[in-house]
Amino acid sequence: MNPTLEIFSQGEEIVTGQTVDTNAAWLSQQASTCGFTVTRHTAVGDKLDDLIVLLRDISQRADCCICTGGLGPTSDDLTAEAVACAFDLLLEFDATAFAQISRFFAHRNRPMPASNRKQAMLPQGAERIDNDWGTAPGFSLQHGRCWFVFLPGVPSEMKHLFQERILPTLSTRFLLQPAQLVTIKTIGLGESAIQERISSIELPVQVHLGFRAGADEVQTKLLFPFAYPGIAMTTLVARFAELLGDYVFAIDGLGEVTGDLVFEIDKLMTSRMLTLAVVETATQGLLAARCIGSHWLLAAKYEQSTTRLGQKLAVEANSGNLFSTAKAIAIAMQKSSGADFVLVQLYAGDDRQFNDKDKPIILYNILLTGDDFHQSTHSVAGPIKRKQNQAALLALDLLRRYLQQSASK
Amino acid sequence: MNPTLEIFSQGEEIVTGQTVDTNAAWLSQQASTCGFTVTRHTAVGDKLDDLIVLLRDISQRADCCICTGGLGPTSDDLTAEAVACAFDLLLEFDATAFAQISRFFAHRNRPMPASNRKQAMLPQGAERIDNDWGTAPGFSLQHGRCWFVFLPGVPSEMKHLFQERILPTLSTRFLLQPAQLVTIKTIGLGESAIQERISSIELPVQVHLGFRAGADEVQTKLLFPFAYPGIAMTTLVARFAELLGDYVFAIDGLGEVTGDLVFEIDKLMTSRMLTLAVVETATQGLLAARCIGSHWLLAAKYEQSTTRLGQKLAVEANSGNLFSTAKAIAIAMQKSSGADFVLVQLYAGDDRQFNDKDKPIILYNILLTGDDFHQSTHSVAGPIKRKQNQAALLALDLLRRYLQQSASK
Repeated sequence: MNPTLEIFSQGEEIVTGQTVDTNAAWLSQQASTCGFTVTRHTAVGDKLDDLIVLLRDISQRADCCICTGGLGPTSDDLTAEAVACAFDLLLEFDATAFAQISRFFAHRNRPMPASNRKQAMLPQGAERIDNDWGTAPGFSLQHGRCWFVFLPGVPSEMKHLFQERILPTLSTRFLLQPAQLVTIKTIGLGESAIQERISSIELPVQVHLGFRAGADEVQTKLLFPFAYPGIAMTTLVARFAELLGDYVFAIDGLGEVTGDLVFEIDKLMTSRMLTLAVVETATQGLLAARCIGSHWLLAAKYEQSTTRLGQKLAVEANSGNLFSTAKAIAIAMQKSSGADFVLVQLYAGDDRQFNDKDKPIILYNILLTGDDFHQSTHSVAGPIKRKQNQAALLALDLLRRYLQQSASK
Repeated sequence: MNPTLEIFSQGEEIVTGQTVDTNAAWLSQQASTCGFTVTRHTAVGDKLDDLIVLLRDISQRADCCICTGGLGPTSDDLTAEAVACAFDLLLEFDATAFAQISRFFAHRNRPMPASNRKQAMLPQGAERIDNDWGTAPGFSLQHGRCWFVFLPGVPSEMKHLFQERILPTLSTRFLLQPAQLVTIKTIGLGESAIQERISSIELPVQVHLGFRAGADEVQTKLLFPFAYPGIAMTTLVARFAELLGDYVFAIDGLGEVTGDLVFEIDKLMTSRMLTLAVVETATQGLLAARCIGSHWLLAAKYEQSTTRLGQKLAVEANSGNLFSTAKAIAIAMQKSSGADFVLVQLYAGDDRQFNDKDKPIILYNILLTGDDFHQSTHSVAGPIKRKQNQAALLALDLLRRYLQQSASK
């Protein structure tokens, strides 16, 4: 039997529906992957009595509980107080936590408001969880059958603390027989197109198949039970990968560390010491912005109008043949930037089409590598921000495909 | 006192985190707006005992409960059975429901699987909620102090049934006195700095104060009870706005439609028919990308190195005085772009500082409006993507401040 785990979210913004509780889903996925059976999510607001009753209930019901929110400096942040009341504990001043909070403000050259002192008050016997991403330290403590972990509600801080400080300690506290999750990440195929492509596969009954479609990628998830034979697993995954073809940009869960599309591009560009220049239109800066922190991006140029772009680069824009325009732009940009590769992202369609969520625009991407051109074209629809994001991803994906294909030769 | 309401979501896909429970947030917003106090969200999986215990608990705790999920035809859809067990009721065959389900399949020229008959079995005394969007009818019933409403988990069906069949009946069952929410949106002040600024305000006990810190803005939320005097409300909000000063970029809930920072800038730029050019460094395209769809953005230039930026614009970069460099860049960009305003975003610090999440960088923003310069400087820290995002927001905020101040003169 797996140990049971509950998720407890605190905050008026959640019970009133102003915030969708994405923390609960993320933590549940993590906990399920580790080998817990997640039995319940509960969200309550900022009422002390509700918190106390709930903490007591959970302490009798679950083996582990991850709580988020309520650790801030303000008067509606009640977690530490509720824990103290629920389990008859005193609140104690934690000098190390206080020093960390002070340092957070000192680094930012801001005076520390008096209210932040509250965040250094932890229930007696609690173990502090240092938070180097924000002001609120988390803490953990055992009560009844349940080990409670309290984390800040800000998703980035919560995820960071969970992954760095909690995840590595779980196996020392619980007997965990984790299922193994393999995630196949694709760009350019919708969920139903994926289902159609893989429909010939007969899935073993113990293996669970799921999908998750995000703004940046679609994930095909295979959950294998604990101690599933390694060869059977890799064979099945390889079959999926084969059917999904070069839409697959990364596979998680087979040992290699993978990330998002830019992460995968970064690995390949860095290891091959290549440099890139980009020229963008529909993405309006987002293509370059997505590559923040990547040293291989030498130059970027943005111009919404292809004609003006042509003028600037002394290239004749031919709206009837955007690929040939893009090629001329790529050559001009290669000369001026000195980059190894140039990625050019153009689109057909006017302003009105671009702004109209019911009208698609057609994207034309050219990648210049040495003397070779590679190209892709796509139709994207939806609200303007979706078009912008898809245009950035699909242009970058042309680069990713070239890098992966040429690396595997 | 408002009637209390709980949200109860059923489904393994929710407790395991494969699906984010957006239904709960949506229903909570609807219910809060109507005049309920939403006290709790609970999600459980497909275990009959868990469902029974929870239904009994809620029947003693809340005035109303909206439940989603578990109405389907498969063996893990247990809602009707759980209700019957929890409240000692028989399940009865509902001929009208059965006719509707049969019709659903007939319309689609599909045979009705035998398992769908189950969906026509409703707990004794329940009121059927006809579902013309799917196969599963919902139902409602009173038990203990609580009126339960059971809706399908598919968001489109759930929303449709709630809006068409439940919302119009709520005021006949409950005395509803909806509260009014006012949201004051700021950029550049942390949650605790806001609390310190407003600490002199003595909040009337009926008014609830809350905060929400996102990546792009901090929201200070004031919830006023039903029939709170309008003048007292606007006076209190004005006092908050005064203490928060020009960090406030928009106030929601007083009649005017407001949006995010770019939305507010867009309103002002458009109404005054102004145009803008931007020059960016640390944001690497994100400053322009954020303004996607805004016709007033005439030109954008990005260069990570201030020296190279200077070369391109034939401006001498002076790393010892970034404001004077930024001014020279702004003048050059104004000439080349012909835009009314130029926004220049520079930063001090090298690549290593920029990439190091523990090291801050210093931002220098210059806005050129006609012949006038306006400037701001900020220290931002954290992971590189946070620095990038903050840099874009804080540069845009300099423009927003100028636009709002000059409009109010």
